[in-house]
Amino acid sequence: MFKGRIGVIGAGALGAFYGACLARAGADVHFLMRSDHEAVRQHGLRIQSILGDFDLRPPVYASARELGPCDLLLIGLKTVDNAALPELLAPTATADTIILTLQNGLGNEEAIAAALVSNRTVCDFPTASKQIIGGTAFLCSNRIAPGVIHHSAHGFIRLAEFCGRPRSRTHEIAQSFVEAGIECEVRESLASIRWEKLVWNIPFNGLGVAAHHADTRVILEDPELRALAWNLMGEVLEAARADGVSIPDELRADLMQKTESMGAYKSSMQIDYENGRPLEVEALLGEPVRRARRAGIPVPRMEMLFALVRRLDEQNRCRIRS
Amino acid sequence: MFKGRIGVIGAGALGAFYGACLARAGADVHFLMRSDHEAVRQHGLRIQSILGDFDLRPPVYASARELGPCDLLLIGLKTVDNAALPELLAPTATADTIILTLQNGLGNEEAIAAALVSNRTVCDFPTASKQIIGGTAFLCSNRIAPGVIHHSAHGFIRLAEFCGRPRSRTHEIAQSFVEAGIECEVRESLASIRWEKLVWNIPFNGLGVAAHHADTRVILEDPELRALAWNLMGEVLEAARADGVSIPDELRADLMQKTESMGAYKSSMQIDYENGRPLEVEALLGEPVRRARRAGIPVPRMEMLFALVRRLDEQNRCRIRS
Repeated sequence: MFKGRIGVIGAGALGAFYGACLARAGADVHFLMRSDHEAVRQHGLRIQSILGDFDLRPPVYASARELGPCDLLLIGLKTVDNAALPELLAPTATADTIILTLQNGLGNEEAIAAALVSNRTVCDFPTASKQIIGGTAFLCSNRIAPGVIHHSAHGFIRLAEFCGRPRSRTHEIAQSFVEAGIECEVRESLASIRWEKLVWNIPFNGLGVAAHHADTRVILEDPELRALAWNLMGEVLEAARADGVSIPDELRADLMQKTESMGAYKSSMQIDYENGRPLEVEALLGEPVRRARRAGIPVPRMEMLFALVRRLDEQNRCRIRS
Repeated sequence: MFKGRIGVIGAGALGAFYGACLARAGADVHFLMRSDHEAVRQHGLRIQSILGDFDLRPPVYASARELGPCDLLLIGLKTVDNAALPELLAPTATADTIILTLQNGLGNEEAIAAALVSNRTVCDFPTASKQIIGGTAFLCSNRIAPGVIHHSAHGFIRLAEFCGRPRSRTHEIAQSFVEAGIECEVRESLASIRWEKLVWNIPFNGLGVAAHHADTRVILEDPELRALAWNLMGEVLEAARADGVSIPDELRADLMQKTESMGAYKSSMQIDYENGRPLEVEALLGEPVRRARRAGIPVPRMEMLFALVRRLDEQNRCRIRS
């Protein structure tokens, strides 16, 4: 188990779940929480999980300054809040802190590196990059009440270094997750695990919003939307290829079949939309589209999805504000 | 002025306006009306027009049977009601009736021909086709109360034969519109006038719905949506070309500029969507997409717009029904 001080920043349904699992297995985990701070301080964290329920009374903080320096930071922040990274990392990340982001989409490692540099934690981008590990989490969990997380399915994690090949620390962190009961594998290429997740996330998160409250069943049962999801996946494969990541075309059929078995599943973006929360449109659509554009790869459907979801996101915020 | 009996089928904001103009100029115009029948029978039609207001007490009928055989039928029906064409044409169209459709999009002339054949008005599709004239109307008009039409801008019409080149009757009908104060020109190719109108209709009607209450100003002021509208226009030009219609690429810039000058204009599809009415998704998007597919022309954005608007249309009807 990881020996140092672990801080969880963005301890929502994802961060709180993984942090709690690590703490239960003996790690020294500290939680930075906003809205749930008071509830957790008084009553602790309650995890209702398919792997077994458990309670925890962890150290919890209301600000990054109170949390203070950590050896490992677990970033579970919504990507729409990435602008807060400099402020969150200034008191918590030193030049020796390992920062693991389990956020969605593209551009988060870059945002973290930029935050470290702007905070003068390190002097340059290449040095900052070496502190960062990226991960993709395949987890179905929801915060159902203050301090209460419901974990309904999956949970496995893939890790890769932002800069260079896996190191001994990458494997140690993976091993810590495994000891905490979480499947975790180390992969050679971060771009590869990020794009692999986008093959599903782009069509099903994007269409979940653009096709108006369309859960996975709605998309798969409508022949035009199903064909569109399929073609979007094809564009993601092309964009990934241009970014140096070769994903076998068979993944499309495989994901379609897995999605069939999920029933009427709502993507996180659809749920955010329904609840009037800001959508992770830049990380999941904007940045992938921009990378494809820079590589000169035509991705008309991804571009269109980006344009529409971006507009719906703006509309949604106006609706909620008014 | 046209000498025979004229019947207006689908006497809404478009049909009632043009029919009233023809009647005022001396034509023998009879109106088939559903919801406004009683109001018009009692109080007549009231046209509030930028060309001058006028009132009219025309013959009005509640059913196609009462309307009876006509020499010229003016079809202003919403394309979503095309399934009613056989029933509407059976008592009104003989083998000598000229049928002018001013409906939106593609596939309406075919639906009328099929209705004539299924009614045994004529024995085959080629014969039926010769009775049909297609027209595109550039008209801003609204039904603001039962029997009251507000005409706010434009009004000109382009006509072309469904089958073959313009004939003397095409010019006679065009001349009748001109005598009624409506600009009207005869064109050589129906496909050409239909696709030309779609270059605007597909992006601005489609995005008006898919981009969630996006009027023309919203679309033009959002850089991603503006680029998307531009690229959609490009796809329509490609699809038109594959259908034998060559439209100069300059039309795109020209339409963009004209649309700028329209301010925050709501397309008919957006207005239908807001009012929970069925959308003309098949005529404006479905049929154009199918023609492009048959020709083997890739139109990824048009296809995607079709898939999304079709879904939103279904959703909208469910919402209204429930």
